[in-house]
Amino acid sequence: MKNSFGNTLILTLFGESHGPAVGAVLDGLAPGIPVDESFLASQLKLRRPYGTIGSPRRETDHFSIVSGVFRGKTTGTPLCILIPNEDVRSDDYESVKELPRPGHADYTGRCKYHGFEDHRGGGHFSGRLTAPLVAAGAIAIAALRDKGIRIGTHVLRCGGVPDRFFHDLPTDISNLNKAVFPVLDAAAAEAMRQRIERAAAADDSVGGVLETAVIGMPAGVGEPWFDSVEGLLSHALFSIPAIKGVQFGDGFDMADEPGSRFNDEFAVENGRVITKTNHNGGINGGITNGMTLQFRCMVKPTPSIRHPQQTVDLSTMKNSTLQTDGRHDPAIIHRARVVVDSVTALVLYDLLAGRFGTDYLGCCQ
Amino acid sequence: MKNSFGNTLILTLFGESHGPAVGAVLDGLAPGIPVDESFLASQLKLRRPYGTIGSPRRETDHFSIVSGVFRGKTTGTPLCILIPNEDVRSDDYESVKELPRPGHADYTGRCKYHGFEDHRGGGHFSGRLTAPLVAAGAIAIAALRDKGIRIGTHVLRCGGVPDRFFHDLPTDISNLNKAVFPVLDAAAAEAMRQRIERAAAADDSVGGVLETAVIGMPAGVGEPWFDSVEGLLSHALFSIPAIKGVQFGDGFDMADEPGSRFNDEFAVENGRVITKTNHNGGINGGITNGMTLQFRCMVKPTPSIRHPQQTVDLSTMKNSTLQTDGRHDPAIIHRARVVVDSVTALVLYDLLAGRFGTDYLGCCQ
Amino acid sequence: MKNSFGNTLILTLFGESHGPAVGAVLDGLAPGIPVDESFLASQLKLRRPYGTIGSPRRETDHFSIVSGVFRGKTTGTPLCILIPNEDVRSDDYESVKELPRPGHADYTGRCKYHGFEDHRGGGHFSGRLTAPLVAAGAIAIAALRDKGIRIGTHVLRCGGVPDRFFHDLPTDISNLNKAVFPVLDAAAAEAMRQRIERAAAADDSVGGVLETAVIGMPAGVGEPWFDSVEGLLSHALFSIPAIKGVQFGDGFDMADEPGSRFNDEFAVENGRVITKTNHNGGINGGITNGMTLQFRCMVKPTPSIRHPQQTVDLSTMKNSTLQTDGRHDPAIIHRARVVVDSVTALVLYDLLAGRFGTDYLGCCQ
Amino acid sequence: MKNSFGNTLILTLFGESHGPAVGAVLDGLAPGIPVDESFLASQLKLRRPYGTIGSPRRETDHFSIVSGVFRGKTTGTPLCILIPNEDVRSDDYESVKELPRPGHADYTGRCKYHGFEDHRGGGHFSGRLTAPLVAAGAIAIAALRDKGIRIGTHVLRCGGVPDRFFHDLPTDISNLNKAVFPVLDAAAAEAMRQRIERAAAADDSVGGVLETAVIGMPAGVGEPWFDSVEGLLSHALFSIPAIKGVQFGDGFDMADEPGSRFNDEFAVENGRVITKTNHNGGINGGITNGMTLQFRCMVKPTPSIRHPQQTVDLSTMKNSTLQTDGRHDPAIIHRARVVVDSVTALVLYDLLAGRFGTDYLGCCQ
Repeated sequence: MKNSFGNTLILTLFGESHGPAVGAVLDGLAPGIPVDESFLASQLKLRRPYGTIGSPRRETDHFSIVSGVFRGKTTGTPLCILIPNEDVRSDDYESVKELPRPGHADYTGRCKYHGFEDHRGGGHFSGRLTAPLVAAGAIAIAALRDKGIRIGTHVLRCGGVPDRFFHDLPTDISNLNKAVFPVLDAAAAEAMRQRIERAAAADDSVGGVLETAVIGMPAGVGEPWFDSVEGLLSHALFSIPAIKGVQFGDGFDMADEPGSRFNDEFAVENGRVITKTNHNGGINGGITNGMTLQFRCMVKPTPSIRHPQQTVDLSTMKNSTLQTDGRHDPAIIHRARVVVDSVTALVLYDLLAGRFGTDYLGCCQ
Repeated sequence: MKNSFGNTLILTLFGESHGPAVGAVLDGLAPGIPVDESFLASQLKLRRPYGTIGSPRRETDHFSIVSGVFRGKTTGTPLCILIPNEDVRSDDYESVKELPRPGHADYTGRCKYHGFEDHRGGGHFSGRLTAPLVAAGAIAIAALRDKGIRIGTHVLRCGGVPDRFFHDLPTDISNLNKAVFPVLDAAAAEAMRQRIERAAAADDSVGGVLETAVIGMPAGVGEPWFDSVEGLLSHALFSIPAIKGVQFGDGFDMADEPGSRFNDEFAVENGRVITKTNHNGGINGGITNGMTLQFRCMVKPTPSIRHPQQTVDLSTMKNSTLQTDGRHDPAIIHRARVVVDSVTALVLYDLLAGRFGTDYLGCCQ
Repeated sequence: MKNSFGNTLILTLFGESHGPAVGAVLDGLAPGIPVDESFLASQLKLRRPYGTIGSPRRETDHFSIVSGVFRGKTTGTPLCILIPNEDVRSDDYESVKELPRPGHADYTGRCKYHGFEDHRGGGHFSGRLTAPLVAAGAIAIAALRDKGIRIGTHVLRCGGVPDRFFHDLPTDISNLNKAVFPVLDAAAAEAMRQRIERAAAADDSVGGVLETAVIGMPAGVGEPWFDSVEGLLSHALFSIPAIKGVQFGDGFDMADEPGSRFNDEFAVENGRVITKTNHNGGINGGITNGMTLQFRCMVKPTPSIRHPQQTVDLSTMKNSTLQTDGRHDPAIIHRARVVVDSVTALVLYDLLAGRFGTDYLGCCQ
Repeated sequence: MKNSFGNTLILTLFGESHGPAVGAVLDGLAPGIPVDESFLASQLKLRRPYGTIGSPRRETDHFSIVSGVFRGKTTGTPLCILIPNEDVRSDDYESVKELPRPGHADYTGRCKYHGFEDHRGGGHFSGRLTAPLVAAGAIAIAALRDKGIRIGTHVLRCGGVPDRFFHDLPTDISNLNKAVFPVLDAAAAEAMRQRIERAAAADDSVGGVLETAVIGMPAGVGEPWFDSVEGLLSHALFSIPAIKGVQFGDGFDMADEPGSRFNDEFAVENGRVITKTNHNGGINGGITNGMTLQFRCMVKPTPSIRHPQQTVDLSTMKNSTLQTDGRHDPAIIHRARVVVDSVTALVLYDLLAGRFGTDYLGCCQ
């Protein structure tokens, strides 16, 4: 599948950070889904760096939808979104072309593409590719919302500063979803911001953990082997640059405690089966049980730091030192939030359309 | 893809715990790989319960290869392995058919399959399906070994008892790979065993964390979006029953520390590029960098405990209580080890054959 | 995909002609489809050689369903059908191992599998693999029938002898579907049989054309690019050994006439849109239009003739002569019929389940 | 897979005839393939209507490559080609929106997309989508050519006028490949042109048969079940609008003759195995045998004729009459040639890269 994801709804990403444009093709959408361009724009805005805690590279992300939408609604044919690249300073990268940046994909890209890759700004590996991903995800988010399925993500930890845990997704998540720095506890946001600014001042960076909750997923979606909900979500989530850990429900916290603590007992509530706790994150045997889907992603600190670092000059195969001058983010975790939401929406859309048919999330059903 | 995994090497699992047999089809193997049935048998033995810390259900796992092998070597055509089910006591499950076990897939299976599923012993969700997975994986493990790629996994934590960390895969991993309870520190094994027996005595169970290392992977394997090494491995690993968390390199440990700590700096060693540390687990931008692949899986405590638990009677939709009488394991983490190794081998085989061609891991290359 | 076919319903074939067994795994079936083993047996019988016009190799095709069926109905999990090989005379092939049979896959199999292939009786290329294909197809045929979708195929030509054309599928196709030699005109059957016997007497073989019709397909199924109904059906049909041509509607007959003859004009009939003619075989733009699906397959004459033929001794790379002694069919077109029906049913099931959801063809909808 | 094709090299098409642009994403290309934009332009020119035998709609097909090419060579990341739509007269279609054109996909599109489709000019079903297909194919054609694999197609029949048969691909096919109306016999071209003009004068259209030959394919490529060379090629070829029949080698001509005529006997020539005839079109058992690949496609007459035709008014569900005023081609077979070449190249590239690895057709190997 390479640069595509999905069985029924298939997303393909293309583009390089400093090429003419980045974009996405989304194939398998139901016909008749309303496409609200202002919602796409607001989602893209959440992804962009801002204020003192973001990179000075400022894209406007003027996107255009070149296919698959007619009179404001999806046609059901492939939808291509194009986002031209602007504010590109490729010269920043030319001088360090042979010096792979530690923690980045420069060296592995060279191994895979034999030097033919567009190395400027990370090329195809760039976080810039998450812009079309977010635009595509916005369409899936809206389609799910119309079926009562809502996704919320907050920064659970950042640079060691904790937010409080989701217990469930709050009824009104619009504030959370609009917040540029999404936390449940406002004081946490302020402490995290300070932590990021301190990292920036030290020419360093910080990461953290995102926690996501999804309500409204019907029970019975997913496959035992191998297209479990956990399997598909993690597959897609690990494509987001910087994510190096994914856990569902209580995840790694279950490692040290006895099993009797984690079995979510069943009960009847208003005529439907619920679980009294949700240690398993709404998934048993790879399949949704109708409770809140819950998972956490670890976003590693941005590798683009200004500290001088040791690397290798690939043209001479000698040890060398690199001090990057590009424009960097001291933290991307708050920006990664909308990418996680987008990926989650695309995976859930794919699962639902596979299970209930390609029209299921369109306006005809 | 449902019950299949892989693009170039495709594994399909079939079977139910109490049906006639479980099995696997492995399609896309190179021709000419030696198939050593005694190695398959020894791998299957590592998966079986044993001693005082295992379920009393004792399968002999007499497998038969019904296709794809001719005169001791793979033909290159689909290889089907069949493992008949023995020692089946289906009556254990009949009385509790309408009472889904908490923490199991009984309820989600019902939601998905509308009651047509074979509910006995977990049916298709049963850990029994990992037997053909291990048999199939053994063939991939052997093919990788012949290319110098070796996989080792140990129990890093169990019920709160730690083993020491892998720093790299030891040169001689044959002892580790043969150990029924694989740890780096023999004292840890003894403490873990006691912990498991204590859980068993309390009609409870424990889980833990497995740590895996793979050496010998060439650099340049994997895709940026979406078939990253992390994405493909996690997709497959999350299919293993009880795995609820996967992290690569330092994983969640990177959440709270500054980025300057985790950038693996490059150096030249013996004419090749290495990284001086391996916080990223041998993967940058989704692609192998030639260092040791390293990841950890959280195996949750077995949900099959004998404590009375609250559930719902699905025939009456009333709250009810369940006390299971089936034969259970107080811990499966040591048994999950060989399943993790198998899944890892199958995913890496798939990646390599996709990259270098279908004959790459056969004896002709 | 290799030895698999389908997106939502995936068929995987395995086995070699002279190995322990051949079989199929069918993944993605709806739960609750009744599985009538006697219908599977009767379909398998139509595939077997019989009487004076068939090979003396006589298999009983005792199949067993080893997974995916519980209490007579599909569970929705992968269904594995196993058919042990019997009446195997492998010695027939040993003497000619290095002499590839013209018109067979012996030589191409050698090129692909480097000599590791099981060469006996065509190995994995053998028409024997169509036995599990037919068994799997029988389940799809029954599921479609329960939705009012019926498939019929007859021998339109054989060795130059014509049957009359289908204009539409007759209301009662049970006689056609049960006939060992299916034709619309009984006199044609007799003439074809004589033609086949004459070919047999001359140590030669004959082929022909099969014509298939499917009624009851809903309109709006298929994709414009590339999973058109024609594309998916032809992809699967060309896997049937001996099929070298596929055409839809009037097919190649449209090459020489003006377009005004082939546009199927629309009309309203009983409140629904129909076409007044069906030159396009029920498909426009790759998508069903609700009319009868119609297509023809060319089945080439069996290549296994007893005439001495020139070949190459691959061990010496010298020209050589081959006279095969194996048991052969002077014609297989009548046996290919049930294979075409099976493949057609599997493809249509796949298309419908992809469009309307995985439960669509089960008993819950 | 829907609007994508391929396992290793994946093509995705997007766009509508009267939308902002049509385009293609090609994922899985080897890094380092030279991309000659003037060759793409000349291939696109062969697809465009011209002279008296083409539609008056005249696109310039100014394409832009927005990703995947860096400094004139493929990077190995997804290559997106965008072709803006020009010379669009959407009003032609507005008046007939509710009157589906016979022989077109208007009605089936409506059934599938519930009226949300962009109906103008055939929307996503338009032959216009073959423009990005041809541009993408040009890259594959060039990569294959660099490995000694060459493709040629000529008009074997058109409106009843025959060209002579290919016996093999001539050594110098550059003239054929550059000819706007490709035939082997110049006199045939003239007769076909007259036939087309006669059809145009009668407000009618003609179709025909294309014959394709490919030399240089290595032996041993393809799969027995189901990804045979015939299966994959036909799957992709049937997506080309107007193709309703595909046959390999002697195809339907084998239906009436005895098998002894069609077995291609083997011989040794210059130390390699050849077949003395090529009735099977270079494929046995779905796998290439090293001889010339040979197949024929039936291109039906353009359905867009100016004759008044009966149709249904979908808004009232009453019978109606349609006289189209759009700009049409009396024949497209000569334009379809380059589309067939492109599809063939993409499928063969996919097969080769799957077999020999993703770098196989790049400049590093």
